[in-house]
Amino acid sequence: MIGGGQLGRMLAQSASLLTIPITILDVGHSPAKHVIHPAPSNINPLTSSNILDANTTPTESHGEGHIDGSFSDPEKILELARRVDVLTVEIEHVNVAALESAERETGVLVQPRPSTIRTIQDKYLQKVHLVKHGVPVAESEAVASNAAAIEEQCKKWGMPLMLKSRTGAYDGRGNFVVSDISQAGQALQALKDRPSYAERWAAFKKEIAVMVVRSLTGEVVSYPAVETVHKESVCHLVFAPLRSDDPAVEERARKVAEDAVRTFEGAGVFGVEMFLMPDGSILVNEIAPRPHNSGHYTIEACNTSQYTNHLLAILGLPLGSTGMKVPSAAMLNILGFSSSFSPISQLVSTALTVPGATVHLYGKAESRKGRKMGHITVVGSSDAEVRSRLRPLLAALLPDPKNTQYAPPPQTPGFSSPHPLVGIIMGSDSDLPTMLPAAHVLDSFGVPYELTIVSAHRTAERMTQYARGAASRGLRVVIAGAGGAAHLPGMVAAMTALPVVGVPVRGSALDGVDSMWSIVQMPRGVPVATVAINNSTNAALLAIRIIGASMPSLLQQMEKYMRDMEQEVMGKVSRLGEEGWEKYQAKKH
Amino acid sequence: MIGGGQLGRMLAQSASLLTIPITILDVGHSPAKHVIHPAPSNINPLTSSNILDANTTPTESHGEGHIDGSFSDPEKILELARRVDVLTVEIEHVNVAALESAERETGVLVQPRPSTIRTIQDKYLQKVHLVKHGVPVAESEAVASNAAAIEEQCKKWGMPLMLKSRTGAYDGRGNFVVSDISQAGQALQALKDRPSYAERWAAFKKEIAVMVVRSLTGEVVSYPAVETVHKESVCHLVFAPLRSDDPAVEERARKVAEDAVRTFEGAGVFGVEMFLMPDGSILVNEIAPRPHNSGHYTIEACNTSQYTNHLLAILGLPLGSTGMKVPSAAMLNILGFSSSFSPISQLVSTALTVPGATVHLYGKAESRKGRKMGHITVVGSSDAEVRSRLRPLLAALLPDPKNTQYAPPPQTPGFSSPHPLVGIIMGSDSDLPTMLPAAHVLDSFGVPYELTIVSAHRTAERMTQYARGAASRGLRVVIAGAGGAAHLPGMVAAMTALPVVGVPVRGSALDGVDSMWSIVQMPRGVPVATVAINNSTNAALLAIRIIGASMPSLLQQMEKYMRDMEQEVMGKVSRLGEEGWEKYQAKKH
Repeated sequence: MIGGGQLGRMLAQSASLLTIPITILDVGHSPAKHVIHPAPSNINPLTSSNILDANTTPTESHGEGHIDGSFSDPEKILELARRVDVLTVEIEHVNVAALESAERETGVLVQPRPSTIRTIQDKYLQKVHLVKHGVPVAESEAVASNAAAIEEQCKKWGMPLMLKSRTGAYDGRGNFVVSDISQAGQALQALKDRPSYAERWAAFKKEIAVMVVRSLTGEVVSYPAVETVHKESVCHLVFAPLRSDDPAVEERARKVAEDAVRTFEGAGVFGVEMFLMPDGSILVNEIAPRPHNSGHYTIEACNTSQYTNHLLAILGLPLGSTGMKVPSAAMLNILGFSSSFSPISQLVSTALTVPGATVHLYGKAESRKGRKMGHITVVGSSDAEVRSRLRPLLAALLPDPKNTQYAPPPQTPGFSSPHPLVGIIMGSDSDLPTMLPAAHVLDSFGVPYELTIVSAHRTAERMTQYARGAASRGLRVVIAGAGGAAHLPGMVAAMTALPVVGVPVRGSALDGVDSMWSIVQMPRGVPVATVAINNSTNAALLAIRIIGASMPSLLQQMEKYMRDMEQEVMGKVSRLGEEGWEKYQAKKH
Repeated sequence: MIGGGQLGRMLAQSASLLTIPITILDVGHSPAKHVIHPAPSNINPLTSSNILDANTTPTESHGEGHIDGSFSDPEKILELARRVDVLTVEIEHVNVAALESAERETGVLVQPRPSTIRTIQDKYLQKVHLVKHGVPVAESEAVASNAAAIEEQCKKWGMPLMLKSRTGAYDGRGNFVVSDISQAGQALQALKDRPSYAERWAAFKKEIAVMVVRSLTGEVVSYPAVETVHKESVCHLVFAPLRSDDPAVEERARKVAEDAVRTFEGAGVFGVEMFLMPDGSILVNEIAPRPHNSGHYTIEACNTSQYTNHLLAILGLPLGSTGMKVPSAAMLNILGFSSSFSPISQLVSTALTVPGATVHLYGKAESRKGRKMGHITVVGSSDAEVRSRLRPLLAALLPDPKNTQYAPPPQTPGFSSPHPLVGIIMGSDSDLPTMLPAAHVLDSFGVPYELTIVSAHRTAERMTQYARGAASRGLRVVIAGAGGAAHLPGMVAAMTALPVVGVPVRGSALDGVDSMWSIVQMPRGVPVATVAINNSTNAALLAIRIIGASMPSLLQQMEKYMRDMEQEVMGKVSRLGEEGWEKYQAKKH
């Protein structure tokens, strides 16, 4: 492996699970080297017990260990190539020519292919390559390194204009946003006169990312799409899975990412960063030919981590399942605050008190402002739970008004949660008094929900959108109340695969029997879970049971509710016996 | 850390996440040492960047590394003690006197306490200790190392008699089952004349285990109870969570384990192995003062792994959440078959094709029959999924008729799954024709279920047991069909916190309206999800939506079902247009 930073460290941690021997080329005591003990070459128990190698003769053992040197040093690359079977990178800013000559000289397999790394490490070549292959990207043009050229480009495309250094750029270093034409000189200085290019400004709605794994034979599989949040151009937060009103976004994002990765050669994991535009279209921003910050969450949240899959891919082993094993996850980068470790220590101390949080520290010897020192993954049984677990972590960082955007405070009674599990909808505001008890039950169980008016007959379009987007927004149950010729529950059930609970609302005539039959007698194929007339309490309790079926702690809350209910009646039993029924009855009013 | 085997290795892997520096005392290149690179003492980036230590002065740095030596060598223990702040063990068969003198001499903190290790490493002293503290165990008596004493004990307690070596025993080594009084000599030989004791035979129903974490201040938290399966006295399989007809078993098991661990001194993780007896009582079998094989699954399946929690405990940091983050998990030990790695390699190759399987290899230099070489954890969205994922792994081992017991083949139509998510019950066999379509829908979706007769009025006791045990057996939804004065759905809903779907079955009179009102008009507090009269198809579809609310792949299947239904109608639309309605109608019959 060329490079021994945090990505290399996590790759080495994954490799240790399969006793895959790794040799690392990097300068000094890099983070990745700390988790590998180089065995003496004469006895190398790791290699001899490397199960994946059991069929090869142990005499061919290459051993593993550390090479001290720069990953741009051709000699060191050659030394590394001589010692390993497969050569991979944890950083794309490597000496590609040296990789190629090492490959020619030693026959070592370089994955992903040097040609891929060459194309990707020059961001403008990368864009040209993607355009050539029909991958959607923001329009880009090479710009000469002089003020006049930059000013001309500003006039041509308008501002803000995104100027990017073609090479050596990462974490926003090498990007400059020209907001005013007078900034051309400043831009040149910021980009240090390196070759650069302009990108048409993408006023995205969200930044998203998909990790794609490409096998030696060109098969690609993708991880779930995630939302990424950047702060000063550095990845700050990642949320998985991506939630969206539009149920097709996830599939579209994965397809764009997979198609983009198909255009490159070689095996491994690729991080595809994209923009989700306001019109729902997707533009690829940039691609990394290696494990990526937006995929750290996979270690705790997916069946196979991106690191394990990178190893499986480059070794020609079957790719691992990319599915999430938990309902929801978030990743928070631990960035250095200054040279002091103390604020990081405080953040970590907080994280140790948060259920579902896993701390990863990278063992870097020095902290610097903005340096990636570690990350924290938070998993939970719902988005709301993950956000509530994230809250103390964000609070432990510097105060930032945006924190509440990413980890909002607990739901305010009377207002919808931004991360609801239950949607309460009603055909008319006149149904509100009937539906309110459902809201109160959910409040008392602490289950996040939203409440709004959706009329089948008067807002058919809104109903369609609501139903179609319910699952992709993260809802798990819809409670729909309606009266008379009550179509709302059944029509919503016809347009979502989620369970829909129907509450027949009693109107001025027929005692609600009309609504009851309208809701309960659904045709074969589309069920509505119908509860008693006007009984929205039971609708909420049913919704809680539904969510609780897969959330043991909620099921326990329901068991407690039932015991409390029993106790309440037992109390009445006692009182009735003690007071006698004549008095009791009088008291009842 | 004293000992560098697989437990030490996994502990070191967890420590690397928090950059906790570890020094290991063991002979040669033990598994744990492979994942730690000892930095030179003059520069130790790991220690200086040990975030947890940020507030201590780096000059006090102890460094980390390897000490080559036996964990019973007092000099080596002293050397280790001088280099670390906290001393822990990954094996209980250590030199306790040396630990104590090292502690006296250096002031190092030994966790758990040497007294605890001393009590536990002599299994008979351990039993006496537990009895003294009121922890339920199988009755034990010390037996002198001669044939006469053994024969006498056989006569006293009957056979089979369990004879156990008091010290140095693990993985069944040191146990001998006397089935016939003539075996006394054989037993002596097997136990190598070591001090031994007899245990009254425990004809358990299941072996179970609970990992307990004890903090420096004596606080204890426990992991979920698991089922353990032993093969030739070595742990073979672990299933989490424990399933049981009796909803109270899990809590009882955790309480017994927590109470047992409370009787010991010192911090760390303790593995408590127990017998679940046929009468529902629980006996502690033995306790390990360290991470344990039955807790390996926690790495992938719980919020905090047992290894991380051991470290947090001994360092006086807040204990991590012990909750499971996935619905179901299993652990399969990889035991050596012979000196050849080849069968292990084959098993691992199979595991790499199984979604949700994570392979842990321990990097042992040599394989031996029965040696623990690694383990595979399998996680999934349900017990049924975990078992189906386990199936190819067990098949890759030597053929064993018991495999089908632990990973049964897919459900046979017409017969109940041993790991159902849905329970279909009906008041009478006369309801079967009405309820069969529900079974067929679940078959077509591949959702595991059971189907049986439970009558509210005629088998009230059975109904109570069914409802009370539904959740603890792993069911997520109950579908109940009943006709007339239909009480079954509502009564089951009154005794389980799971969602209950009610199917009103049409009787000979009243067109099913009687059942409908009996089922749907439940009182506030206990909901039944009612579907249309006789429409068990919709009951099954609703059950699938309920499970699918927390199982994205199932939700996608439901979306496909709905698209197919749409296509089917669209086909009819075309046919109607093409054929004209006169002909079409004729064709309909």
